[in-house]
Amino acid sequence: MREPVRVVVVGSGRMGSGIARLLLEKRGLALVGMCGRRAERAGTDVGFAVGLGRSLELPLASDLEELVERAHPDVAIQATCSSLSDARAEIEALVGRGVNVISIAEEVAFPRRQHPELAARIDRLAVEHGVSVLGTGINPGFVLDLLVIALSGVCARVDAITATRVNDLSPYGPSVLAAQGVGLAPEAFREGVQSGTVVGHFGFPESIGMVASALGIEVERIEEEREPIVSKVRRETEFVTVEPGQAAGCRHSAVGLAGGRPVITLHHPQQVHPHLEGVETLDAIEIEGSPCVRLAGRPEIPGGIGTIALAVNCIPRVLDAPPGLLSMAEVPPPAALMGDVRDVLRARPETA
Amino acid sequence: MREPVRVVVVGSGRMGSGIARLLLEKRGLALVGMCGRRAERAGTDVGFAVGLGRSLELPLASDLEELVERAHPDVAIQATCSSLSDARAEIEALVGRGVNVISIAEEVAFPRRQHPELAARIDRLAVEHGVSVLGTGINPGFVLDLLVIALSGVCARVDAITATRVNDLSPYGPSVLAAQGVGLAPEAFREGVQSGTVVGHFGFPESIGMVASALGIEVERIEEEREPIVSKVRRETEFVTVEPGQAAGCRHSAVGLAGGRPVITLHHPQQVHPHLEGVETLDAIEIEGSPCVRLAGRPEIPGGIGTIALAVNCIPRVLDAPPGLLSMAEVPPPAALMGDVRDVLRARPETA
Repeated sequence: MREPVRVVVVGSGRMGSGIARLLLEKRGLALVGMCGRRAERAGTDVGFAVGLGRSLELPLASDLEELVERAHPDVAIQATCSSLSDARAEIEALVGRGVNVISIAEEVAFPRRQHPELAARIDRLAVEHGVSVLGTGINPGFVLDLLVIALSGVCARVDAITATRVNDLSPYGPSVLAAQGVGLAPEAFREGVQSGTVVGHFGFPESIGMVASALGIEVERIEEEREPIVSKVRRETEFVTVEPGQAAGCRHSAVGLAGGRPVITLHHPQQVHPHLEGVETLDAIEIEGSPCVRLAGRPEIPGGIGTIALAVNCIPRVLDAPPGLLSMAEVPPPAALMGDVRDVLRARPETA
Repeated sequence: MREPVRVVVVGSGRMGSGIARLLLEKRGLALVGMCGRRAERAGTDVGFAVGLGRSLELPLASDLEELVERAHPDVAIQATCSSLSDARAEIEALVGRGVNVISIAEEVAFPRRQHPELAARIDRLAVEHGVSVLGTGINPGFVLDLLVIALSGVCARVDAITATRVNDLSPYGPSVLAAQGVGLAPEAFREGVQSGTVVGHFGFPESIGMVASALGIEVERIEEEREPIVSKVRRETEFVTVEPGQAAGCRHSAVGLAGGRPVITLHHPQQVHPHLEGVETLDAIEIEGSPCVRLAGRPEIPGGIGTIALAVNCIPRVLDAPPGLLSMAEVPPPAALMGDVRDVLRARPETA
């Protein structure tokens, strides 16, 4: 097919807007529509809605089904939510109309472990309609799962995996900061964890599930721990001031146990201005086994642009994939789209 | 299929033997035969031939076609050679009999750039017989190509890629050391490069070709440079002594140019005992773009066991792949096989 690949973006927030802007830079892709959840924005020119500063002569839609029937997309990129229960209606509406879906909703990265019945249902629907659904994003979807899996490929034996992502929350807005307990006194932080207002990282069970499934390890239990990162210094961002003694963020970890033994341990402490206490941001993977493998990058891969890039770069992956609900471990590795997307699609007749 | 996957190993040297020993440790795999090129070893018990120290009641074969017709393998792992011209006859014999092939021959990692006609011929033959051929190994096949490609997936734009692998040749035998010019005076080293006896790393055009193809970058030219790593100190291994002023190894680099500009630069200096001059062994990837990404591991991933593990861990990949000649960038990422291989094969009817 030498027609451009027709793409709609579902979600007109920060991520959806970034995805739309990047799509416009790529050869062989056509942005044929964008749908926001907030009905009051409907009709706004997409070019202005996404901060492009010029008209695209494309109005922002609010009715996804109507948009799909009008725009006939090959692929939709979903950037509206985090949970599968929230993502599900849009995914089913798209899949039911024969549209491939890339979702950055964290729980879509690997829903088979936490939501096996719903995952099976989406998988069946996708197979019935001959399309694929792929969850991606920097994390879950890349750093603490896909990279770990790929790296384990050089191992004759894996005894234990530890992966760590230390990032800086300073660029984020009030809702993210609140979900990480930033600015709370330690007791309030712990109460927030109990009541569910302090959630920390969203995606550990997905990452552990994806790694365990890819390696064939039976993880019988996942244990998560959320502790306040109590600041010794004053830390200030546009949206929050953390005084000494308050939480600068959440030290969130998860352990996957197999045979009662910790085999997959993931650390993802998130805080504002970690450098103020000499904490370096990084991504690090350590595999104990034969051989032992260590890989690290400083600073960490930025989450926002990383997720936006993955969503766009995965377009050829979802078009080439066999029908069904897939994880990043089940498609060829993502690659930066630097040429025409139509040139990197598989040329084989059976997959065209 | 709940029958074990039937595997033959082609090649009974150090790599083939390591692959056979690892296969025996994995659930769901059956080693059903092994074939060596040296006819005088035929009939030796494979268990003793591979250094297992016990009989496997399986004689080492020397006639590959006869072995395949007797053993009915699902997959063959080829560990006999480096070049495509050398690997070709065995691959065609296997593919022509409906056997999937994993090859650690360096040129099979990505033969489309250097040998497009032969690659197309093998691809057609594989499609005709409904099987897949996959080249793998630590390098080419993983460090300087697959990891680079996967990492670029988080980039909205890639301006330039630099990847470096610094390793230690000390464990290697005389033929590898000679090919790297170890122990030669600088003039003799340069003469060896001219005459083709000093080859350095085998696989740069394959790695650059794989990265360029995956990202959709048109690399019009690849330039390689081989310089002696002149030692300042005495370096000694079991097989060679390097005096100060002699080459401890080969500083081999390659650059892929697009639009006259270097876009993919790979460095792979190989020498004995690099630590004697304070040189740390490592794997490092640096992507300039948006965002910039850096990832490094110290020491380097060991080449021997890494290649052996990749060959075995790719068995489910080659069984699940669409028919044809594939590179590591075209199948899902490898993963350590820790459970039963049959549990990680895709369960979908159309791929079973």
